[in-house]
Amino acid sequence: MRTLNVALGERSYPIHIAKGLRHRADIVLPHLKTRRVALISNETVAPLYLADVRSALEAIGVGVTAIVLPDGEVYKDWATLNRIFDGLLEARCERSTTLIALGGGVIGDMVGFAAATFQRGVPFIQMPTTLLSQVDSSVGGKTAINHPLGKNMIGAFHQPRLVMVDIETLDTLPDRELSAGMAEVIKYGLIRDPDFFDWLEANMAALMARDADALADAIARSCANKAEVVAEDETEQGVRATLNLGHTFGHAIEAGMGYGSWLHGEAVAAGAMMAAELSRLRGWLDEAAVARIEAIHVAARLPVRGAALEVARYLELMAHDKKVEDGRLRLVLLQAIGRAVIDGASPPDLIEQAIRARLDG
Amino acid sequence: MRTLNVALGERSYPIHIAKGLRHRADIVLPHLKTRRVALISNETVAPLYLADVRSALEAIGVGVTAIVLPDGEVYKDWATLNRIFDGLLEARCERSTTLIALGGGVIGDMVGFAAATFQRGVPFIQMPTTLLSQVDSSVGGKTAINHPLGKNMIGAFHQPRLVMVDIETLDTLPDRELSAGMAEVIKYGLIRDPDFFDWLEANMAALMARDADALADAIARSCANKAEVVAEDETEQGVRATLNLGHTFGHAIEAGMGYGSWLHGEAVAAGAMMAAELSRLRGWLDEAAVARIEAIHVAARLPVRGAALEVARYLELMAHDKKVEDGRLRLVLLQAIGRAVIDGASPPDLIEQAIRARLDG
Repeated sequence: MRTLNVALGERSYPIHIAKGLRHRADIVLPHLKTRRVALISNETVAPLYLADVRSALEAIGVGVTAIVLPDGEVYKDWATLNRIFDGLLEARCERSTTLIALGGGVIGDMVGFAAATFQRGVPFIQMPTTLLSQVDSSVGGKTAINHPLGKNMIGAFHQPRLVMVDIETLDTLPDRELSAGMAEVIKYGLIRDPDFFDWLEANMAALMARDADALADAIARSCANKAEVVAEDETEQGVRATLNLGHTFGHAIEAGMGYGSWLHGEAVAAGAMMAAELSRLRGWLDEAAVARIEAIHVAARLPVRGAALEVARYLELMAHDKKVEDGRLRLVLLQAIGRAVIDGASPPDLIEQAIRARLDG
Repeated sequence: MRTLNVALGERSYPIHIAKGLRHRADIVLPHLKTRRVALISNETVAPLYLADVRSALEAIGVGVTAIVLPDGEVYKDWATLNRIFDGLLEARCERSTTLIALGGGVIGDMVGFAAATFQRGVPFIQMPTTLLSQVDSSVGGKTAINHPLGKNMIGAFHQPRLVMVDIETLDTLPDRELSAGMAEVIKYGLIRDPDFFDWLEANMAALMARDADALADAIARSCANKAEVVAEDETEQGVRATLNLGHTFGHAIEAGMGYGSWLHGEAVAAGAMMAAELSRLRGWLDEAAVARIEAIHVAARLPVRGAALEVARYLELMAHDKKVEDGRLRLVLLQAIGRAVIDGASPPDLIEQAIRARLDG
């Protein structure tokens, strides 16, 4: 078992990565306040793994209330969140009850937000079952639901007590979602870890073939990168914003096409290419670097062009992004592969040009 | 102007109390991140005071987005909260925009929760316009909305940057709401400030006659008590729970009768009498003390008996209270006037007896 630590003082917590962790209730137990949990999953993941987690917990005397939600980004909304609250209240869950999120990023974000706000805050544990949630959303305490006018617009910072990454849950992950998760893995190389980017170039074929050792290495390295950034800047006052490489462009794609049409990681990949293009136009990246960035995304079977929306629509949707400050769009750009910068000085026509250069069709 | 401080380290903030503070944008300005605010009120308060606050802010160059919500506890729900989010997003408010709550406890709690969760947290300022919100809910950072299965079930701890208490706004407060606010004033005397309780006995007639000096004294003393408790225990791990005297019984009344039928303060008053009765049954208060507690509530024109629900219904609704831990109801009781205790050891039959002794009709 690989174990990392997210260093946040009294809110520090471990990330465990290994095969078969869904059965290891003994690791969960010391993190519970009382022997009572609400285990929350979705209709895709629950039939595969919920019974394993539940029976392991019940075998050591933990009471389990299961709540199963519909699956998909379109359900990352208030109505579905409210089903969690209904379930918790109907089962008389208390302030000391621990919520466990068993699923991908949507489940993790929603359960985290439910934990942040149920009775003004209860503990929660992440058991991410997709590559994307294992390397990104389960670590760092960002929780949220979507609003019709913007993704993740309603949320809170609320750190989990524990993250359990069971590598075996990737066995059932569809290919398209494996690729989507790889977009966030590649991101760590791009923004702060050039050696990891080199390693990914050498190992992407093994990763896409689901080589277990390669996946475990990539997940651990990604979580280590994320944990370092989060420890440095928990509430995104500065460096944490670099984790949003490709996300402002990507959010425009997701919102413009309707949440769930593009997977988050797919939109981030296309968004990262727009950011790379803009970085080239700013004179920071050369064409060879942009070509390497495109090649690694292609190797991960990810889109390298954005959805065919009007450029004006991109700009309108991007203006709703949370990274806007005093009316000015702040974008994460690259000064080199492995070195990100937060930039508010790109002229609007250059931003338009970068989008146009990377539009589909 | 009287000024108190809520001592919470880097989240400390001042409470100002004076006549005419709604015009004092100069006091607000240093607390803003940018010259941009969303001023949120309800249909009762907005026609009286919103223009004053707005024009004072605009006169010093602060951009104001006004959002006016329907008035009443029944609107303390997700649908109304979502109108705040809609308004903020339609006006392209940003993470640096400060929300200002202009109204009573419902507006303060909802705007505070909107501020806690909009884009994962934005600053906010309280301008409470009712006695209840001035002495209680505007101070201390508890924010929430109601759920059909329980009051304030969904919320967060999120401290304001500033509390501005304009005494003049009490001029338009209905008598019934003045009384309801007085229930929380009396509470501070009961739980921790016996000298203040004596002062209230001597001055209740002046307070009910809306003597401005007496009201300013009572508000400042109440806020000082609240600030001390909050500074000691921000997230209610211990002593802060004593502020809930009468609230567990009171929540049962509010929920059982339908939110908004009884005012919160009215339910708290009846709940405090049930807690006093239970404290007598436990052997802590004598009959003379209970009589004094009843007399001060009567002098404040507050109910001293609970709504005529079945006792079983009280117990059922109380079991949903947030103060339940490991299945056991924890109640705030009185060991003397001025000394509260958190108690989980009252036998169920004694709790029933206390409720029954204080039932209406």
